[in-house]
Amino acid sequence: MNLREKLKLYVITDRRLRNEVESVKEALEGGATAIQLRLKGVPTREMVEVGKKIRKLTEDYDTLYIVNDRVDVALAVDADGVHVGQEDMPVDVVKEIAPNLIVGVSASNLREALEGERKGADYIGAGSVFPTRTKEDARLLGLGGLREIVENVHIPVVAIGGINHENIREVLKVGIDGVAVISAIVGTKNIVEATRRMKEVIEEYKGRGTKQLTIILIN
Amino acid sequence: MNLREKLKLYVITDRRLRNEVESVKEALEGGATAIQLRLKGVPTREMVEVGKKIRKLTEDYDTLYIVNDRVDVALAVDADGVHVGQEDMPVDVVKEIAPNLIVGVSASNLREALEGERKGADYIGAGSVFPTRTKEDARLLGLGGLREIVENVHIPVVAIGGINHENIREVLKVGIDGVAVISAIVGTKNIVEATRRMKEVIEEYKGRGTKQLTIILIN
Ligand code: NI
Repeated sequence: MNLREKLKLYVITDRRLRNEVESVKEALEGGATAIQLRLKGVPTREMVEVGKKIRKLTEDYDTLYIVNDRVDVALAVDADGVHVGQEDMPVDVVKEIAPNLIVGVSASNLREALEGERKGADYIGAGSVFPTRTKEDARLLGLGGLREIVENVHIPVVAIGGINHENIREVLKVGIDGVAVISAIVGTKNIVEATRRMKEVIEEYKGRGTKQLTIILIN
Repeated sequence: MNLREKLKLYVITDRRLRNEVESVKEALEGGATAIQLRLKGVPTREMVEVGKKIRKLTEDYDTLYIVNDRVDVALAVDADGVHVGQEDMPVDVVKEIAPNLIVGVSASNLREALEGERKGADYIGAGSVFPTRTKEDARLLGLGGLREIVENVHIPVVAIGGINHENIREVLKVGIDGVAVISAIVGTKNIVEATRRMKEVIEEYKGRGTKQLTIILIN
């Protein structure tokens, strides 16, 4: 599995917007390349039940499957990885207790991104790129901060926070590996269509990047 | 380690009553044989930080150390085990992802106790023996229900729920292996003294039980 490729369009669940299983089914049909199960304030047993259903779906679509915060749930549902924030388990501790999980770390500035990389993270979730109401406690990174992270870490970078169909091109220009989205996909009526449209823009840009590289090589 | 022996006086933390590290220090000084770290609504990183401090303390006293609900935190802090309720991770799943942890299961009736045992639990936390306000959602098991569990499962049984210095003898008469306490110890001003007094009653009873057994054998 090419992690950079798998991180291209990373859809995060949000129960306040739509049931997890429903939204994941539709996002997968629309072409999501990664799914993050994010459940807050839900009993562990329910997390495991929902998480196993999503494992089946992501397996059918050969999609990367990440669980937010909970290493135990990630292990119990056989997810590919876990995503941890600055208040969650430290990356090095995750790697100690679950060496086979892919670990993503949220970073809202360069220092956090470099620390995550140093402690063994496999990718960085960098944000918030734009102001957002989905994660109210998110600190603003901005496009400038995002660029700084992309230029300084060697692991893949996924941009997150307030990204939608209107502003996604500005984010792609920075040269990130993927885009993480909650409300612009899970908060829409037609999740399949919203995913498909976003995927098209990403592939168009990624394709263009390759062409530019080809031209440079020819010159 | 003899698990039955270690479960004799099982003290559970409660932040609403007292800081975890403080209360554990005092409970250990007073003679607690097991500590359960119970943290709800606290970020995972903080759980790990507090949990590691309690690992050091319990190590110094050679005391059993159990973490409530969170298998990932139990692994991260190198606890001896995890305690799961009916809404937490199922015992068999815990045993799959963390085969070296001791697993305790809460049971509020015989069916749950037998199911826990069948799925691989190492001990049962049976309750609530008496009405309690510390765990508001606890269903009442009563002394009769407790006796039924003790008579039907083969793994150790710890009684929990509303047990204090006044009613503990009634509970010990049922023939349980240990007593789990929150407010009667953690909710008192002098935790060392409250633990010591309760430990004395338990040892007095356990001692008496042995003598009775000896008499039977002699007869
Ligand atoms: Ni470098």
